[in-house]
Amino acid sequence: MSGPSPISFLSDYGLEDEFVGVCHGVIARLCPHAHVIDVSHEIPRHDVRRGALVLRAAVAYLPAGVHLAVVDPGVGASGENETRRAVAIRAKREQRTFVGPDNGLLMPSADSFGGVAEAVDIGASPVRLEPVSSTFHGRDIFAPVAAALARGAPLAALGEPIESRTLVELQLPEARVSDQTLHAHVLAGDGFGNLLLDAGAGQLESLGAHAGDALALEHSGRVHAARLGRAFADVPAGELVLYEDSRRALALAVNRGSAAERLGARADDEIAVRRA
Amino acid sequence: MSGPSPISFLSDYGLEDEFVGVCHGVIARLCPHAHVIDVSHEIPRHDVRRGALVLRAAVAYLPAGVHLAVVDPGVGASGENETRRAVAIRAKREQRTFVGPDNGLLMPSADSFGGVAEAVDIGASPVRLEPVSSTFHGRDIFAPVAAALARGAPLAALGEPIESRTLVELQLPEARVSDQTLHAHVLAGDGFGNLLLDAGAGQLESLGAHAGDALALEHSGRVHAARLGRAFADVPAGELVLYEDSRRALALAVNRGSAAERLGARADDEIAVRRA
Amino acid sequence: MSGPSPISFLSDYGLEDEFVGVCHGVIARLCPHAHVIDVSHEIPRHDVRRGALVLRAAVAYLPAGVHLAVVDPGVGASGENETRRAVAIRAKREQRTFVGPDNGLLMPSADSFGGVAEAVDIGASPVRLEPVSSTFHGRDIFAPVAAALARGAPLAALGEPIESRTLVELQLPEARVSDQTLHAHVLAGDGFGNLLLDAGAGQLESLGAHAGDALALEHSGRVHAARLGRAFADVPAGELVLYEDSRRALALAVNRGSAAERLGARADDEIAVRRA
Repeated sequence: MSGPSPISFLSDYGLEDEFVGVCHGVIARLCPHAHVIDVSHEIPRHDVRRGALVLRAAVAYLPAGVHLAVVDPGVGASGENETRRAVAIRAKREQRTFVGPDNGLLMPSADSFGGVAEAVDIGASPVRLEPVSSTFHGRDIFAPVAAALARGAPLAALGEPIESRTLVELQLPEARVSDQTLHAHVLAGDGFGNLLLDAGAGQLESLGAHAGDALALEHSGRVHAARLGRAFADVPAGELVLYEDSRRALALAVNRGSAAERLGARADDEIAVRRA
Repeated sequence: MSGPSPISFLSDYGLEDEFVGVCHGVIARLCPHAHVIDVSHEIPRHDVRRGALVLRAAVAYLPAGVHLAVVDPGVGASGENETRRAVAIRAKREQRTFVGPDNGLLMPSADSFGGVAEAVDIGASPVRLEPVSSTFHGRDIFAPVAAALARGAPLAALGEPIESRTLVELQLPEARVSDQTLHAHVLAGDGFGNLLLDAGAGQLESLGAHAGDALALEHSGRVHAARLGRAFADVPAGELVLYEDSRRALALAVNRGSAAERLGARADDEIAVRRA
Repeated sequence: MSGPSPISFLSDYGLEDEFVGVCHGVIARLCPHAHVIDVSHEIPRHDVRRGALVLRAAVAYLPAGVHLAVVDPGVGASGENETRRAVAIRAKREQRTFVGPDNGLLMPSADSFGGVAEAVDIGASPVRLEPVSSTFHGRDIFAPVAAALARGAPLAALGEPIESRTLVELQLPEARVSDQTLHAHVLAGDGFGNLLLDAGAGQLESLGAHAGDALALEHSGRVHAARLGRAFADVPAGELVLYEDSRRALALAVNRGSAAERLGARADDEIAVRRA
């Protein structure tokens, strides 16, 4: 392909203000023919984990190129509070590059492409917009670096090399099976009220559960009846269904309702699953 | 035109999750130069009628090409619950093609272009992404088919032919005039709180009403004073106005307010209109 | 550049209905290769000032070309109520053109590029879509004019010339310093709950305040403790910080909270700032 690489863009900027449009504008000025795909800009404010999970769920379906992501509660800290770097990362597979804050946001997606091959600190990138504001690094640092990468600039020209092992990892819970029980955890909710879990369908099969089986879910001391299904519609409206979602992981839904509301569950909550 | 056909895209996916971005990604991977126009992704969840009406209101203004639409409460059902097909439809005029679930969503728009010339079931389309998930046919079936159509693939290559008369039609109320009364119905509300009705300006003219005339609207046993106007601003702030909206059909508004809230009206409610 | 000019697009249409997608469709039909950048479509309904401020904050970062903006409470008025014209404006610098209602929305952005060089009334533009609806001038007038400008049409071919001095200006408060007090005003809130003020950092420096200094803010008879910082994270979570925002003007934030909620402040409210 002779044109610029495609850029995908995720943030928690929301669509009320000018922030997303300004980043598009900066990219269009620096790389007029770049194709920019918006993944989501409605990540809950400052929710780095949710941003990381949404990006990871999307990234394999996005064209190879530059993945720009900004969920950045630490932006603008100075002095003692200076807690995060701005980074660009090249993954080992497909030449995928990731641009954003060094707070774990990019790491699960980079891991989907073999992990980190090369990383640079772009806080003082030669392509940044001067003067760099304290609060809008999307405009002043991340978008210009993404545009330069889309035009073919090598990572090394855009920042100072840093060691991969110093990159901040995202902490995520890990499901486990013991005593004929799958101890899963809520990773996040989605906009449908479904609860995304950290367990795979294989872990449930190890309990001997099959599609259609009745299950007992324990959460916060309460037990809920559910069914193992292929999809929402495999249970009557209003009932709980555990199914393999589009990420190929387990999720919990209420057919035409909200599992998040039904259980009152939040990120990291444990949900213990047994055959009923 | 030598490039791919434009694709327009409507859904109820919302913008919080990765769903819309993933569909854009799938299209960009299969048809990198396609121009994709987002019509709306904030259709109320599972509201097939609202999706169908928004698409119909937009479609004449969208470039001819592929119209991808997904409002799909029946996705993922299996066995006895399997209630909808995935389809691609070619309309009789302008070679417009429509891709989405067979639940009525696409039909009013296809009717705007002369009705259905050809239809195929794309559930097992050769271009679908394998393995097809139970819940995300936008990604796995609809987007790949839309991308293939944009590249010029004939409909017949993308699915199994089905008879037009087996396609699910959308049920809509029908306004009628009797006893000097226009019996109209609410089709939907819009984001401004305006109520979109199923009547045309001609039906009101048949009562002898003219711009500026005072009207009496009966809804749910209550009578409201309104005026026939050209637009919101033809009545003082806070008052009801019946006007021909941008769809060229009648709508009911409160100038700088919400008619939906004022009347407490819902889809399918009858509103009886008389000259006051 | 040989292709069409880029178009940026801001409105209060929201994303629930077909309005934004229809305008994109109209542009794509008239100028298929135009690159359209969405600045924001979630401007609060009818809030001309907020729209004007968001556009002004974005415009310097958007590529030179056509800036289409529609926040238009006066659309569709007729007779005595006919209070606004539809206009296209060329600024003195960079050949920037602005298209929208003549209600002040476009003026602060035009002023950012040297003020108005030329203006035309496009209400009866030869490129408008007939019949022009009463309520959707974005589709019928503004988008077609924006597309024609993007294709290179001269302003004079698209409407009737009007005198610059007759264009409606936006009324904005003006901060002033007296008695060691900065009398600033709230221009608007943003989606993060930050309050955007009409004062610049220089006005605060004239009080002798430096980064890290304690401040007393008086609003509605109540005094709040705050700190002058470079960014949110310069104060502990939950505390007020006054900082130079990405517009290079002063803003008031609560670190990881909402200053708008904390103060209960609205547009035009005075906030008196003193060193504590």
